[in-house]
Amino acid sequence: MSKELIFGHQSPDTDAIVAPKALAYLQSKLGKDVEAVALGELNEETKFVLDYFKEDEPRVIETASNEVDAVMLCDHNEPQQSVSDIDKLTVTDVVDHHRIANFNTEKPLFYRAEPVGCTSTILFEMFNENEIEIPAKLAGLMLSAIISDTLLLKSPTTTDKDISAVKALAKIADINYEEYGIKMLKAGTNVDARSDKDLIDGDAKSFTMGGKSVRIDQINTVDLNDVLKRKDNLVSAMKDEASAEGYDLFLVIATNVLDSNSKAIVVGEPKDSVEKAFNQQISDDTIDLPGVVSRKKQVVPPLNDVME
Amino acid sequence: MSKELIFGHQSPDTDAIVAPKALAYLQSKLGKDVEAVALGELNEETKFVLDYFKEDEPRVIETASNEVDAVMLCDHNEPQQSVSDIDKLTVTDVVDHHRIANFNTEKPLFYRAEPVGCTSTILFEMFNENEIEIPAKLAGLMLSAIISDTLLLKSPTTTDKDISAVKALAKIADINYEEYGIKMLKAGTNVDARSDKDLIDGDAKSFTMGGKSVRIDQINTVDLNDVLKRKDNLVSAMKDEASAEGYDLFLVIATNVLDSNSKAIVVGEPKDSVEKAFNQQISDDTIDLPGVVSRKKQVVPPLNDVME
Repeated sequence: MSKELIFGHQSPDTDAIVAPKALAYLQSKLGKDVEAVALGELNEETKFVLDYFKEDEPRVIETASNEVDAVMLCDHNEPQQSVSDIDKLTVTDVVDHHRIANFNTEKPLFYRAEPVGCTSTILFEMFNENEIEIPAKLAGLMLSAIISDTLLLKSPTTTDKDISAVKALAKIADINYEEYGIKMLKAGTNVDARSDKDLIDGDAKSFTMGGKSVRIDQINTVDLNDVLKRKDNLVSAMKDEASAEGYDLFLVIATNVLDSNSKAIVVGEPKDSVEKAFNQQISDDTIDLPGVVSRKKQVVPPLNDVME
Repeated sequence: MSKELIFGHQSPDTDAIVAPKALAYLQSKLGKDVEAVALGELNEETKFVLDYFKEDEPRVIETASNEVDAVMLCDHNEPQQSVSDIDKLTVTDVVDHHRIANFNTEKPLFYRAEPVGCTSTILFEMFNENEIEIPAKLAGLMLSAIISDTLLLKSPTTTDKDISAVKALAKIADINYEEYGIKMLKAGTNVDARSDKDLIDGDAKSFTMGGKSVRIDQINTVDLNDVLKRKDNLVSAMKDEASAEGYDLFLVIATNVLDSNSKAIVVGEPKDSVEKAFNQQISDDTIDLPGVVSRKKQVVPPLNDVME
């Protein structure tokens, strides 16, 4: 059995770093030779999490086929969100909680997806199914990922499984998850300390909708104004990047994690699709997204519906 | 929660009939309103199985969107193997053991695939994970599906999980699975009783490879000559169907389930890809496939490799 790399999506968030670590631990217990790596630098929230639980940062890779023939994907499946040379690799395992799109394999594989709030919730189930104990440190990391993806179990993506997983993991990690969760979310939202480029790339994902290349980034904050006061600079950075990378449409969504509201900055076309999808007008390059906190559940599906 | 239909692929084999029944039982225990249906008439083997265990035949449907909004797929994911109006339906759940191809969803879903010999093996695991008891009759059906897909655990697709599942299910069903399995496989291979059209359609699946439409059918037999003596009529029926349905390439594989060898009848183009994929010459419309018993593992991957 030759070695495999395990990674989450580009522009990794906490789940995209933690889920590969959890899957690597599980696979190694099952006898596989694996290493969890990352497809980009860690964001502030993830740094806080790894530091809090005294866990090493993963190695960041640019390509994988120079090291291995086969890989396992966590928290994504769409090729444009994956490692740059994904077309040269065999995907043997996927653990994910997103839609399936443009993901094709030549051979049968292990694929585990559930419509839950976080990949780490599925991994929690897989540990139970395989009767493998979760160490306290890993439990702390996994509950951090679930809190991150579900905004402390408040996002509409949150399911009963996420809630039970967080409670069980908090017991194993011996932590008050509500107090810890607020500290963690605040640590991830220090917008002032981040550059324009980091803000528009930090949690950005690419999608293909109706033949158009759509880029959607999300910035968590405790005050929308921390993002919007820099709108002119952000618009200019978004335009530069859209033209360099060939994005037709670029949305940067600022989300207030405390009151669960968002506004998006919109660059590119078709703007009317954005207005239609959210039933709001774009004014001064921004659009109100009241009650929106989940890109996956509240942004991608309505936009995809209008554009397809 | 509105009702969902559950079905296997077109031209159903035993797993494509049994796996939906097993998933329907599991989902109903989990509180869902579901019905297992079929996308075509049962083959002789499946009729033998349902008759043996006194299980009703499922209702055969042509379309699903006239009845339901959402469906669950077993034993397939590729749209061209699914119900004709799959594009109008939401797929909420998939349990499968094939490659993933051209399968795209708008929203997150439950997707469970493993590279094992049979979908019913994965369902056996899911019953265990959910701590739901398998009734004796259903256990008999599920072990029949595994025996069918793995040719009594001899196909190269067979994994340790299939073997353990068959043994555990045999205990629940209180059956000698080896004696029963040979009876069942023989019941499914009464080639003389089948029409040319039934032989070339009976277990046929469509694939897209390198932009070409490829149709691959497999006929299990206990004597290859039972198929090959009818070659001229089969070639003529294959040509008619290829031209009516727009298949570029049509392979009908005759497999001897007792000695694990195959020969294929080949119609259409590119013939040189077929010769290259199997490193054999086509002569008189047929090609030797020594040791080949698994379409999924020994036919689709090498042919896809050459054609892509």
